[in-house]
Amino acid sequence: MTDQSTRRLNETNRVEAFSDGVFSIAITLLVLELAIPATQGDFLNDLVGEWVSYIAYLASFASIGVLWMGHHTVFTRIAGVDSGLLWRNLVLLLTVSVLPFPTAVIASAYRVGTSADQATAVVAYGLVWMASGVAWFLLIGYLARNPHLHDPAADPRFFRLTEPLVTLVGYGIAAAIGWFVSPAIALAIFLVFPILYVVRVRSQAG
Amino acid sequence: MTDQSTRRLNETNRVEAFSDGVFSIAITLLVLELAIPATQGDFLNDLVGEWVSYIAYLASFASIGVLWMGHHTVFTRIAGVDSGLLWRNLVLLLTVSVLPFPTAVIASAYRVGTSADQATAVVAYGLVWMASGVAWFLLIGYLARNPHLHDPAADPRFFRLTEPLVTLVGYGIAAAIGWFVSPAIALAIFLVFPILYVVRVRSQAG
Amino acid sequence: MTDQSTRRLNETNRVEAFSDGVFSIAITLLVLELAIPATQGDFLNDLVGEWVSYIAYLASFASIGVLWMGHHTVFTRIAGVDSGLLWRNLVLLLTVSVLPFPTAVIASAYRVGTSADQATAVVAYGLVWMASGVAWFLLIGYLARNPHLHDPAADPRFFRLTEPLVTLVGYGIAAAIGWFVSPAIALAIFLVFPILYVVRVRSQAG
Amino acid sequence: MTDQSTRRLNETNRVEAFSDGVFSIAITLLVLELAIPATQGDFLNDLVGEWVSYIAYLASFASIGVLWMGHHTVFTRIAGVDSGLLWRNLVLLLTVSVLPFPTAVIASAYRVGTSADQATAVVAYGLVWMASGVAWFLLIGYLARNPHLHDPAADPRFFRLTEPLVTLVGYGIAAAIGWFVSPAIALAIFLVFPILYVVRVRSQAG
Repeated sequence: MTDQSTRRLNETNRVEAFSDGVFSIAITLLVLELAIPATQGDFLNDLVGEWVSYIAYLASFASIGVLWMGHHTVFTRIAGVDSGLLWRNLVLLLTVSVLPFPTAVIASAYRVGTSADQATAVVAYGLVWMASGVAWFLLIGYLARNPHLHDPAADPRFFRLTEPLVTLVGYGIAAAIGWFVSPAIALAIFLVFPILYVVRVRSQAG
Repeated sequence: MTDQSTRRLNETNRVEAFSDGVFSIAITLLVLELAIPATQGDFLNDLVGEWVSYIAYLASFASIGVLWMGHHTVFTRIAGVDSGLLWRNLVLLLTVSVLPFPTAVIASAYRVGTSADQATAVVAYGLVWMASGVAWFLLIGYLARNPHLHDPAADPRFFRLTEPLVTLVGYGIAAAIGWFVSPAIALAIFLVFPILYVVRVRSQAG
Repeated sequence: MTDQSTRRLNETNRVEAFSDGVFSIAITLLVLELAIPATQGDFLNDLVGEWVSYIAYLASFASIGVLWMGHHTVFTRIAGVDSGLLWRNLVLLLTVSVLPFPTAVIASAYRVGTSADQATAVVAYGLVWMASGVAWFLLIGYLARNPHLHDPAADPRFFRLTEPLVTLVGYGIAAAIGWFVSPAIALAIFLVFPILYVVRVRSQAG
Repeated sequence: MTDQSTRRLNETNRVEAFSDGVFSIAITLLVLELAIPATQGDFLNDLVGEWVSYIAYLASFASIGVLWMGHHTVFTRIAGVDSGLLWRNLVLLLTVSVLPFPTAVIASAYRVGTSADQATAVVAYGLVWMASGVAWFLLIGYLARNPHLHDPAADPRFFRLTEPLVTLVGYGIAAAIGWFVSPAIALAIFLVFPILYVVRVRSQAG
């Protein structure tokens, strides 16, 4: 029995497995929102004409990927989970799961909508990521207040609130630009934001 | 060979992994039922007009999340699985997998249906959760009768039948209210129910 | 480094994880094929009228569940994987992944089709399961011929070809009945088949 | 605490779990692109008439399966991950996730399109796999340059660039044939390519 229990994964692993499931499904479901051409003789035009969908797809894929990397970085440095961490994690996963929806709204707004529709769509997208920033802030804040959940070997700088705040403020600014200035600029920010993040992490960590 | 077999996960882990897969996919597939606006110039109205969809989405997300937390709590306290546990778990997963369907029926009923359609939809939703309560009852009851499946260190109070019964009765009452009184009240209960559960667990377990 | 490698899962676990992913996704995607009512005032009739969809859904859910239990039983008794096992497993997963398709064809045939369409649909469904039986036969046969892949503690009776053959012949007979006699009887067999299997396993293994 | 941390999986396992999630979801989502017949009395003709969809489905299933086998072969031979490996892996997963899209474009082109549409579709499909070859090339190249990430027991020949180059060139040639000669030949190559790969691996590794 001792032997068997030694081989069991601890609870942290199961939370990670469930979270990884949600992250990997949300990131893969994004593809279902890409429009499949069905007009005889127009496939090339239709595919090329959907370029905004591809940008929205790439932005969402990259952002979920970056958030997964952050989640991974934090959860490999904790030693236990409690119910307070579990529900905060669920709220974060909610914002990840829902992301294919505003991504599809952006694609639809650029396919059939007016520029007001496009502004609505990028604001909806920005709001979901702002909610994600808040959820991430709550989760990291909870970990910062509960050092007994940390792996004793973990560097506490992994539980700082800078990243969630940057997410919250960055997507807030992008949404405001999308509404008051231009949806296209907001869209460009949505794509560049996660790429900049990867570049910064690389320059820090090699 | 001994070394390698030491590194293998036991059967319990694989049941958890499969269950986590179903939970995380069902919770993420919910997003596919949100209606993407496609009417030129009306995106903002369309998005706001779908607020009942969002409530149904949140209710289902929260309820699956809470059920996953309960599943996780129980399965991290068992030491083995047998075929009796496996098929009871499959029945529970069936009720989880099917949930995106009544969730979408509610959204459709509030989009195009009459108030009778809305009553039908909330009753269908309630029936799926009642089935889930029955499946959960069967699974916990089986574990209560088979203490050799428990982790010896586990507190037996984790295998009590109170929670499945509350689920069964609670969703039964909500469905009855939805049918005889008002679908809107039933919908509110569906959303509040899992949130109350999280609050209660927190006040117990910190 | 030694410490770290001790914590790594072996290759068998990763094949199981990938297989569990495919099983759990296929079993959960089935729900997307259920038709959501959208006719004002007719939700109750529409939901009840789709009862054949629910039978097809239950049959597919139960059959994938049973096949997963068999897969689980075999893979927890092997000690290693090689490329021959990997590709046979992939062929088996192919037949599992494709199952939501004939399930939806049955639902569509009973929604809009003639009785010839229904016969076509149940034969298509039976053919996919016959292919699954063949794939399962190849996989088990490969394991039977390669005892070095077994866990030394495993009972060789877990690598017998009876089950794949019963699957192949059983679904073949059901498909033939569906084509020459009645699609409804074939459908009933599809549903009863996995349930009988669970009952038999229980009476054997408690 | 030491005991608990011993049972934790290392970071490599979580990257594998996330990758396996994406691979298994992408391979299973392919089924959603198969067209379900809905014309009364025509189910048999409709199903048979969709044979190109099935070839595209099989080609994508086999190719993702083969790429998963390659991914598995490499990741079971590494001892650690860093941010450089993580983002290269994300780019590879992007090309896997997007594959259901060009697969559906091929099916649509053979359902409603002209031969120019079919050429467009097979080129789009080839381009995604060429991108996958580039991503695989970057990932393997990074591992080749960073031997400290290898499992010390791993044979360095597992980190050679031959396979990504063959993928890149092979799909490039197939896409060119599809555009300048015949989409049907390209489609045949897409199907035969992964099967040849499995045969070759078997003849090498038994």
